[in-house]
Amino acid sequence: MALSRNEIKLIKSLQDKKTRESNRLFVVEGVKLVEELLQQSSFKIESVFYTDEYTGKIPSAVHSLKISASELERISGLVTPNKVLAVVKYPPFKKSIDTTDPLILVLDEIKDPGNLGTILRTADWFGIKTVLASETTVDLFNPKVIQASMGAVYRIQFIQEKLETKLAELQNEGYKLVGADLQGENLYTCPFPTKMALIMGSESHGISEKISLLLDSRITIPQFGKTESLNVGIAAGIILSHYRKP
Amino acid sequence: MALSRNEIKLIKSLQDKKTRESNRLFVVEGVKLVEELLQQSSFKIESVFYTDEYTGKIPSAVHSLKISASELERISGLVTPNKVLAVVKYPPFKKSIDTTDPLILVLDEIKDPGNLGTILRTADWFGIKTVLASETTVDLFNPKVIQASMGAVYRIQFIQEKLETKLAELQNEGYKLVGADLQGENLYTCPFPTKMALIMGSESHGISEKISLLLDSRITIPQFGKTESLNVGIAAGIILSHYRKP
Repeated sequence: MALSRNEIKLIKSLQDKKTRESNRLFVVEGVKLVEELLQQSSFKIESVFYTDEYTGKIPSAVHSLKISASELERISGLVTPNKVLAVVKYPPFKKSIDTTDPLILVLDEIKDPGNLGTILRTADWFGIKTVLASETTVDLFNPKVIQASMGAVYRIQFIQEKLETKLAELQNEGYKLVGADLQGENLYTCPFPTKMALIMGSESHGISEKISLLLDSRITIPQFGKTESLNVGIAAGIILSHYRKP
Repeated sequence: MALSRNEIKLIKSLQDKKTRESNRLFVVEGVKLVEELLQQSSFKIESVFYTDEYTGKIPSAVHSLKISASELERISGLVTPNKVLAVVKYPPFKKSIDTTDPLILVLDEIKDPGNLGTILRTADWFGIKTVLASETTVDLFNPKVIQASMGAVYRIQFIQEKLETKLAELQNEGYKLVGADLQGENLYTCPFPTKMALIMGSESHGISEKISLLLDSRITIPQFGKTESLNVGIAAGIILSHYRKP
């Protein structure tokens, strides 16, 4: 049985945010990510499409279809398609933050999907459970975010909402709002608050003005050379690594 | 005066490594990077092409040509061309390492130009002067490396040579070869050697086998969650930031 033209059209169109949201479906590609999806995630899978070359197990309860390499090329968003593609259902909404968690990572207008994916991957490495993002941050289900996250999207609770409202709630719960900024206290010497919402700003403009007004403090990664700034993912990784140092 | 067809062809072809190397020319694009190039770098400039919208100063000694937005689009390698493009001469070879420098960053088979650029940007932030790279690492003058480096390529001495030979030389000069690895000593607790060559391996395979054999020790960034690995740029940034912590 081959893919119908309508199926091909739908899957391809999941590269676009609007289609993803109206269908509440997104795409996961490649052997590693799909295997992790099948074995370790709680996401509900609509269908798995695989070629002859795919040797992974697909649970019998999951709808799957063997397709040709050229069909995979037609539905894939990758430059080099990698044996398997899954169409996955959006997870159910889960909007409450576990406020016993001492660290929440907050993203204010991260625009680049590669950056968001890498930040999630890094946050997951450091055991962060919840990432809160502004509505102006790139969509979690953007295929480039999914691919760059290396499976972190399966584990991290990602909440994308009006940031001012959520941050006010966190402050009420005893969190200090700490912004990563070029002008702030020295990361190497300043203590971290007991409950911290660490806020990373956009690639080009840093933390937005309205969020800046809410901050309790700012931290800076000391600079030793002349480059004007760090990539936001690198900065997040550095701060999280110092936070975790005993 | 407009651009000739041959000029357009040459500039476009500088997107390819072979043409860059045979002409010993590379491309820098966008207002910020070109201004830094003109004002702060020691690179020799072949030509600057700018549109009406470019408001930066171009020194009179530099050959420049005003072109139309559509001409810029034809010669640009960017999705969104940004007012100005410079064709720049390769710097003269400078192959000796300053062996009084306590830290040399070493890259073993970094394949992704975005990763290399980000690593250089991060290394420059932390005041690293010399980056040594394997011949299998992506070309420094790849336009994506230049753009992602945010000007760090103007400041960092980048040496791309047979790594085994160079590392043996460094060991003779008293450097310890420390590999970033998933199995190694804990970054948070192990001391750094007085003279360190910090080696970062490839995105997919880590440090290559032949380089692994030369290592004096390995360090690991402690893991708190389930993601299998960190992006190599993130890992480099984290290790450099801990190295710089007083």
